[in-house]
Amino acid sequence: MTTTGPTTPRMGVSSGEILSLFRDVPDGLTKSDVARLTGLSRTTVNQRLDGLLAAGLLVPGPEEARTRGRPAGQFVVNRARGVLLVADIGATALRAAVCDLGGHVRNEREAKADVTAGPQSILTIVEKLFAEILHDIRRPPEAVLGIGLDVPGPVDFASGRVISPPIMTGWDRFDIRGWFAGQYTCPVLVDKDVNAMAYGEQRLRYPDVPHLLMVKVGTGVGTGLIAGGQVHRGADGAAGDVGHIHVTVPDVTEPPACRCGNTGCLEAYAGGWALVRDLREQGREVATVDDAVRLIRAGDPVAVRLARRAARILGGAIADMVNLFNPRVIAVCGQLAHTDELLFAGIREIVYRRSLPLATRNLQIVRSDLDPHAGVLGLAQLLVDGIYSPERVQELVDRATT
Amino acid sequence: MTTTGPTTPRMGVSSGEILSLFRDVPDGLTKSDVARLTGLSRTTVNQRLDGLLAAGLLVPGPEEARTRGRPAGQFVVNRARGVLLVADIGATALRAAVCDLGGHVRNEREAKADVTAGPQSILTIVEKLFAEILHDIRRPPEAVLGIGLDVPGPVDFASGRVISPPIMTGWDRFDIRGWFAGQYTCPVLVDKDVNAMAYGEQRLRYPDVPHLLMVKVGTGVGTGLIAGGQVHRGADGAAGDVGHIHVTVPDVTEPPACRCGNTGCLEAYAGGWALVRDLREQGREVATVDDAVRLIRAGDPVAVRLARRAARILGGAIADMVNLFNPRVIAVCGQLAHTDELLFAGIREIVYRRSLPLATRNLQIVRSDLDPHAGVLGLAQLLVDGIYSPERVQELVDRATT
Repeated sequence: MTTTGPTTPRMGVSSGEILSLFRDVPDGLTKSDVARLTGLSRTTVNQRLDGLLAAGLLVPGPEEARTRGRPAGQFVVNRARGVLLVADIGATALRAAVCDLGGHVRNEREAKADVTAGPQSILTIVEKLFAEILHDIRRPPEAVLGIGLDVPGPVDFASGRVISPPIMTGWDRFDIRGWFAGQYTCPVLVDKDVNAMAYGEQRLRYPDVPHLLMVKVGTGVGTGLIAGGQVHRGADGAAGDVGHIHVTVPDVTEPPACRCGNTGCLEAYAGGWALVRDLREQGREVATVDDAVRLIRAGDPVAVRLARRAARILGGAIADMVNLFNPRVIAVCGQLAHTDELLFAGIREIVYRRSLPLATRNLQIVRSDLDPHAGVLGLAQLLVDGIYSPERVQELVDRATT
Repeated sequence: MTTTGPTTPRMGVSSGEILSLFRDVPDGLTKSDVARLTGLSRTTVNQRLDGLLAAGLLVPGPEEARTRGRPAGQFVVNRARGVLLVADIGATALRAAVCDLGGHVRNEREAKADVTAGPQSILTIVEKLFAEILHDIRRPPEAVLGIGLDVPGPVDFASGRVISPPIMTGWDRFDIRGWFAGQYTCPVLVDKDVNAMAYGEQRLRYPDVPHLLMVKVGTGVGTGLIAGGQVHRGADGAAGDVGHIHVTVPDVTEPPACRCGNTGCLEAYAGGWALVRDLREQGREVATVDDAVRLIRAGDPVAVRLARRAARILGGAIADMVNLFNPRVIAVCGQLAHTDELLFAGIREIVYRRSLPLATRNLQIVRSDLDPHAGVLGLAQLLVDGIYSPERVQELVDRATT
């Protein structure tokens, strides 16, 4: 390399990394602090801080700080710089929320809506709820720095499109980002529901556990994997799609048909819809998964027997996941996680019998603590990561200074 | 935070990060280049480069570079600063090698050795081979900057100890690091064999593929996972231990006993040892997995039939892994990977039938390209990462300057 190389710094001296210094320090930092902490020249520090101030990402520290003996000239992160809009879109209901840049929910709304109604119908509802909650907290659309949606189907994370979803009729490759582009100028993130849930649970409840598996047992069965503190989406966004792994149950000669078209899938035995099917075959009057859960909680003997069987089949699949992935925590969410200890007893029985002792000696199998808010909170965390990423900070700085 | 904070830089200005700038630039960089690329003050640049020069990690660029019109005052990475010793310990043989700081093998040796002979016996052989290959290339033990070993069993990566290994008799919690501490002062890394293989394959053959699964089908069955370009070892170092996942085969009424004590494990159907067992039951004279592979390659009809069945059972387990982990590449290594296309045909048949289309549309299932050198090369890559990590570089700099 000669002396006429690139002029953009290649190393950790971006505006984003400077901003990250401030995020852990509520009382703020002075320019001298930054120069000392980074070894950067005074010129570079001034330039970076001017950009962050112009972008409104940093603000001068509050007056009262000085009266507590803090030196003048301090800067702090501007948590009111903007807000985040998130929507957790389930199979039959959705939840929209507005969060601050700390990832805390400021306001939220729920609505009943069947995801099979298609993207136009569902996104119209989401857009309406977003407008309402923004209005409630008196912030304009321009204040929105990020939008996040999660959906009950596989997502190509890079393009933000749902890909070949088994249950989301009409959503295949629909341009979700384009839908919001007219109203909002911020980035739009789309993820699979259980990925967002897994990330929320891990970041907010198990921040010291880098490897976590979230298992959602609702109408279907799905998992979200956190590996090394990051969502593992896999090569095509298909990671965690365990609802359709093939299961062999010894006493079953004819494997049940699955909604995906195959037979013998995990969710055709252990998903909520399969439980509803089996209860009806046994003459019980159930229409929904919630009905089934009520029957189990009421102690109906047939319902309890079927749920116990489903739990053991689920446990067999989870035991394989433990051997492959070796998480420290398995958090279970979804309607069937609310059948008291029944589901957990069945899962634990099989996992501790079949998985390697090394992989289970410190394993915790617990109910999700954030359910049913895990999706909304996980989306907010993903958006906050994005906002404070070096690339995004640079973009905001560039927009403010050029 | 007041002005009397920590003085150690918290950001990307460590000696290790400066060194990383030089690693991609064979012709070297001047002090001005570094100042310009990093935005660091001249004082800081001088201080960091002096440390790296004192530690021998950087050296002045070669004289001849100047005659090609390069400016004076250039520095380059010192690839001869030290060497790495690695040993790939298999069930019945081991391979020891010495590598340079680019991860290239400079010299290597093989030996037959049964891992069940125990750690003292095996590590004595490794130590002897290490001494021989060092002597061959005329470097003293002090030149060794890192030692890496991989073993056919689960490893607690943090402590470098083998934990509850199914086949490594006598190795449980043995202090492998302590064994080398008298002779060498460098860090000692211990990993599961298939983890090192997976990392070698990914770094050297699929550097643009962040999610890769290495499946080893030798005497037993095991996998190594690369997630986001990093080895996924899981919470206890047990990730990838799929040899003992429970498999149900429709036509089997009594599941075969496994060497782990359970019945119906994957490797009790599809591992090399199970194939040897089945061939013997069918009257074939085979003593080892290599014998079985020879019989399959020779087209023996019974051997071919049994191998095809094993491949399909393996394919069923791999299909589940694809649904959970969604890799872009599955590389297969181990003796049974050398049964021409037989194994691959069986695996592909089941994976493409059972896994989700989204997860298989871009999936490649291939023979490991580096096998049988993947372990040695993967260990060298892991050690190189360690040598050039900010922490280790700082340690070498501190040792040289204080």
